[in-house]
Amino acid sequence: MVKQRIVIKLSGSLFGFDTQATQLKEYAQLIKKIGEHYQPIIVTGGGKIARFYINLSRELGLDEAGLDLTGIMVSHLNARLLISGLGDLCYPATPKNLEEISLALVSDKIIITGGIYPGQSTNATSALIAERTGAKKFFNATDVEGIYDSDPRTNPKAMLFDSIDVKRCIDMLSNENSMAGTYDLMDLISLKVIERSRLPTVVFKSSVENIEKVVLDGIRRGTEITISS
Amino acid sequence: MVKQRIVIKLSGSLFGFDTQATQLKEYAQLIKKIGEHYQPIIVTGGGKIARFYINLSRELGLDEAGLDLTGIMVSHLNARLLISGLGDLCYPATPKNLEEISLALVSDKIIITGGIYPGQSTNATSALIAERTGAKKFFNATDVEGIYDSDPRTNPKAMLFDSIDVKRCIDMLSNENSMAGTYDLMDLISLKVIERSRLPTVVFKSSVENIEKVVLDGIRRGTEITISS
Amino acid sequence: MVKQRIVIKLSGSLFGFDTQATQLKEYAQLIKKIGEHYQPIIVTGGGKIARFYINLSRELGLDEAGLDLTGIMVSHLNARLLISGLGDLCYPATPKNLEEISLALVSDKIIITGGIYPGQSTNATSALIAERTGAKKFFNATDVEGIYDSDPRTNPKAMLFDSIDVKRCIDMLSNENSMAGTYDLMDLISLKVIERSRLPTVVFKSSVENIEKVVLDGIRRGTEITISS
Amino acid sequence: MVKQRIVIKLSGSLFGFDTQATQLKEYAQLIKKIGEHYQPIIVTGGGKIARFYINLSRELGLDEAGLDLTGIMVSHLNARLLISGLGDLCYPATPKNLEEISLALVSDKIIITGGIYPGQSTNATSALIAERTGAKKFFNATDVEGIYDSDPRTNPKAMLFDSIDVKRCIDMLSNENSMAGTYDLMDLISLKVIERSRLPTVVFKSSVENIEKVVLDGIRRGTEITISS
Amino acid sequence: MVKQRIVIKLSGSLFGFDTQATQLKEYAQLIKKIGEHYQPIIVTGGGKIARFYINLSRELGLDEAGLDLTGIMVSHLNARLLISGLGDLCYPATPKNLEEISLALVSDKIIITGGIYPGQSTNATSALIAERTGAKKFFNATDVEGIYDSDPRTNPKAMLFDSIDVKRCIDMLSNENSMAGTYDLMDLISLKVIERSRLPTVVFKSSVENIEKVVLDGIRRGTEITISS
Amino acid sequence: MVKQRIVIKLSGSLFGFDTQATQLKEYAQLIKKIGEHYQPIIVTGGGKIARFYINLSRELGLDEAGLDLTGIMVSHLNARLLISGLGDLCYPATPKNLEEISLALVSDKIIITGGIYPGQSTNATSALIAERTGAKKFFNATDVEGIYDSDPRTNPKAMLFDSIDVKRCIDMLSNENSMAGTYDLMDLISLKVIERSRLPTVVFKSSVENIEKVVLDGIRRGTEITISS
Repeated sequence: MVKQRIVIKLSGSLFGFDTQATQLKEYAQLIKKIGEHYQPIIVTGGGKIARFYINLSRELGLDEAGLDLTGIMVSHLNARLLISGLGDLCYPATPKNLEEISLALVSDKIIITGGIYPGQSTNATSALIAERTGAKKFFNATDVEGIYDSDPRTNPKAMLFDSIDVKRCIDMLSNENSMAGTYDLMDLISLKVIERSRLPTVVFKSSVENIEKVVLDGIRRGTEITISS
Repeated sequence: MVKQRIVIKLSGSLFGFDTQATQLKEYAQLIKKIGEHYQPIIVTGGGKIARFYINLSRELGLDEAGLDLTGIMVSHLNARLLISGLGDLCYPATPKNLEEISLALVSDKIIITGGIYPGQSTNATSALIAERTGAKKFFNATDVEGIYDSDPRTNPKAMLFDSIDVKRCIDMLSNENSMAGTYDLMDLISLKVIERSRLPTVVFKSSVENIEKVVLDGIRRGTEITISS
Repeated sequence: MVKQRIVIKLSGSLFGFDTQATQLKEYAQLIKKIGEHYQPIIVTGGGKIARFYINLSRELGLDEAGLDLTGIMVSHLNARLLISGLGDLCYPATPKNLEEISLALVSDKIIITGGIYPGQSTNATSALIAERTGAKKFFNATDVEGIYDSDPRTNPKAMLFDSIDVKRCIDMLSNENSMAGTYDLMDLISLKVIERSRLPTVVFKSSVENIEKVVLDGIRRGTEITISS
Repeated sequence: MVKQRIVIKLSGSLFGFDTQATQLKEYAQLIKKIGEHYQPIIVTGGGKIARFYINLSRELGLDEAGLDLTGIMVSHLNARLLISGLGDLCYPATPKNLEEISLALVSDKIIITGGIYPGQSTNATSALIAERTGAKKFFNATDVEGIYDSDPRTNPKAMLFDSIDVKRCIDMLSNENSMAGTYDLMDLISLKVIERSRLPTVVFKSSVENIEKVVLDGIRRGTEITISS
Repeated sequence: MVKQRIVIKLSGSLFGFDTQATQLKEYAQLIKKIGEHYQPIIVTGGGKIARFYINLSRELGLDEAGLDLTGIMVSHLNARLLISGLGDLCYPATPKNLEEISLALVSDKIIITGGIYPGQSTNATSALIAERTGAKKFFNATDVEGIYDSDPRTNPKAMLFDSIDVKRCIDMLSNENSMAGTYDLMDLISLKVIERSRLPTVVFKSSVENIEKVVLDGIRRGTEITISS
Repeated sequence: MVKQRIVIKLSGSLFGFDTQATQLKEYAQLIKKIGEHYQPIIVTGGGKIARFYINLSRELGLDEAGLDLTGIMVSHLNARLLISGLGDLCYPATPKNLEEISLALVSDKIIITGGIYPGQSTNATSALIAERTGAKKFFNATDVEGIYDSDPRTNPKAMLFDSIDVKRCIDMLSNENSMAGTYDLMDLISLKVIERSRLPTVVFKSSVENIEKVVLDGIRRGTEITISS
């Protein structure tokens, strides 16, 4: 029987100059376990090493779209790290666009990739991948606990949503002032994609334990994005 | 001497089941003339034929990201129409992503392509292409006269901006209710790209006469998007 | 157990500006059913939309080989329509040449593609694909009832062959005056391929009912092309 | 100033197990000289080594379309031999299809390639290439002196045409019995292509001296194929 | 259950101008039999036809790295001969680099390829492929009986090693004078690869009988290369 | 007039987690200056970031050939950094194999790439590139002052060769014990390539000043590798 597909976006924060093999091994083990129940498509972010290459390239004069491509390339290096820990269970390449992802699906293997399109966050990319692969759910394992009603870094009383309708989420993001250097807008794309495809989504803080609980045990963590009829 | 580059987005409305060769020839002639002064990168929309294929595919059950890919494919067919009228002056293929566009630039020829990334309007794609190619200006030849302070189809008193700051433009778009079937959000991406790269942009109604006046004669038409310091 | 392969050429007349999703859905359902018994390779023609793009491009000055490439591109759009209705049962890309078809076969999925080589009709292409894939039979679902001894459009007494030897068929086609705009010669290629590979072939009028009867129920329709020893 | 393009098909008989470097050097020198006046696109046949690989593969069970692909691959090896003698004057790859040929043209270099499409002789391929590249003339340097009114190998009184209309040529070929192992039909494709594009063509016996005379000195050799209005 | 992988390098001496289909059929039958127990990756050498093309190209002025590429191309033609005899049991393309080999593995089919990287013998390439595919053993079916303590062509008392440690083997090769035209160094690469990956390797004289005995029956032939702890 | 080509291998030590944009800018400026006199092909090493990814991947279980591919990918990221500082003077992609390098040459632009083949050091790759591009000289800008008669790290009396014959150099390297983790053997390949193509080579310590002096001013630094007749 063909397994259901799910998309998991892994925060780039897992990948930095101090990343240890033991951490990655735990993630690889978890992905292996998930692969017994689903055909997971994992999307890795670029993280600090991406930002390192991006910053240097920007100083050297590379244009913003070119910088996006550099960041994508680092996210694929990160994807390769996880592939290294999964051997033959994993599709042996990191797909570079949606067409390659469709072809990779045919293998019935676990798929691990990075960003694919410039001008989009890996969140948006992950949502598009979820659409294209017919994934039953999109798990966004990120750096924060979920979606708050205000910025928890500045407002100690910020409240975490247990669930939020995608339309309200879009409103909130649209009205917020975008800060230079953040990819806030790009998350608008992911929300629009979630909305147009009525894609069940959950946003929660990335950790091996959390992912296992949310993905495999069905335990509630973070914020569920709901789609009103 | 190397020519300056400019990006011109051509509204998909040029391409429909009733399109005549004479219209396309006029556009081809215009592009040829522009090619004497600049290295233009032309981005064609999908138009009605794209919507025809998209609607059929949607009824057959294709996912939204897959529909985007279908629309992109039609926009490349449209791009090929214009290439047909330009012969050796034109790069002989329609680049499929930013990397291919960079390689095409090396030829010093006119470049004509369609959409390149799913999840993005051809507006957004054109802005990314402008970034990547170091274009000095982005000309968005569209179906409307320019940017209005409200919807001119419903509000007869809607006022056309002569110029508008990109930040205000983003605010306006963000607050507007998105209507099903329109790619409003995607235009947010193009605005964000315009903002991050401080890309001079003008939005005006597409016609051979208008494009010639705006691009070649420097005559003011439509709305100039300005970037405040 | 590996399924036997068959090649079905679908007349481009299925694809026009007035094509309805319901028609395509019926074809998709039929292909699904065929896929339970065989590994079908479906080849779609370009039809009216191809001719529309070809005519415009010719007026704009595109060379004949370039026009062939344009027609091929539209036939692939048409192939994508059918893929839209088949989901994971179908190979997710439309192979672009025989090498890609060989690779697609490995998936054991239904394969749908369009024309692949300029200078050849989709009939000829389909026959080559039948050779390369080791198909046990080539079903040419076309716009006419089968092969006649003279042109049924001008001769009301034209007789439909029940079966005809490939050599006689080649003779008939060779001696007939070729009319501008028809791909008569190209059908000569398909006949030559049928001859060299002794490929069992049947030519019949395309309809869901006919294809089902001929392919699945083994009922006789149209003209069987036989290969004399 | 951009040079006019011409297509020269080089008989595969130049390439065999006894081919000497000196012969190839003469051809390379000639091509170099031609390259000073035109942008030549040279198409090499497969010759004896192609037949050697084809015969072995057929005995091993490869299908006919697969054999075509094998022959094409050998013709590209042959093309590489000539490239070896031309260094930087030559495009460094042998294009694999018409799209790659269009891209190669942009380099303004001499282009050398082999067969590109299965189911077609290199004659037909060369004619398609002539169409696609806008070549002003197609020079078919072959194993025979030109086109005869009957087979000169069996009829000592066979007469060589000085010139022949393409329509008459098609009639002759169509009525002739095709012999196993010869690519007669495929030459029908090349004639049909010549006809549809009104492509000036000359067929003559391949030798360094003849090619130089016909291509560079405008001296008459072999048979001119004319296109009646 | 997934089969274990093994890599077999087939001496190019199998492929020459006098190669008979019967010989190749025997090899194809053997590979088929091996494919029932393992997923074999077969790497074919270029042999005499490669040297023929290389010699001609060198005389024409092609650089050494270019000659390597020519030789690789011929080895792929040779690989295609064996594929011709294996039909659907075999992956239908000859992978061109390690990434393509990884993708081919996913098919679970027999893989046959030729050389992949210039500057490396097919021995070295085979060892790299063994690494990349996680092969349990590397069978080097070559022109000699195995590894001798001195050159058996000049020293009649040369002794064949039954087994030899990879380090000693490296020492021997390093100290030997390299003769023009031989790829001695390149075998150093294969030894270094064998060493770094502790890859069990056996070198023996290529024949259908020997390969069957060594690979399938576990009978000792030639020289086992051992890796000391 | 076409510029002469040279190959410069840039030590990977330039690229680390503490690399500053100012350093890279100096290199970019230097390359620009070199590009006024030559068509340089620059090959960047992987350096510390490559080793970081390789070490993590090895701990996760990736095979050695796979690790080579990871290192190559990082070296291309490094190459992109330099491209960022050169804009349109530079070929916009980092070629992935010798065929892509040949195609890039046609642009007449500066070419910057990283490693291309697994199982080879970037030294060996650079030498192959020098062969394939017909470079007049290979400049190996490395971490040491040049070639010594013994290891300068352990022998304070180690003497730097002013020049050394390639054969002696090969002997020295062959007899030296290879240390784990160093790519000594791979430098044997580069020496063999230098020998077979009689490629003038100089090995010297990498710095902007040194490269400028050696490449542009013809000042002697490090060790010249000479090729005896």
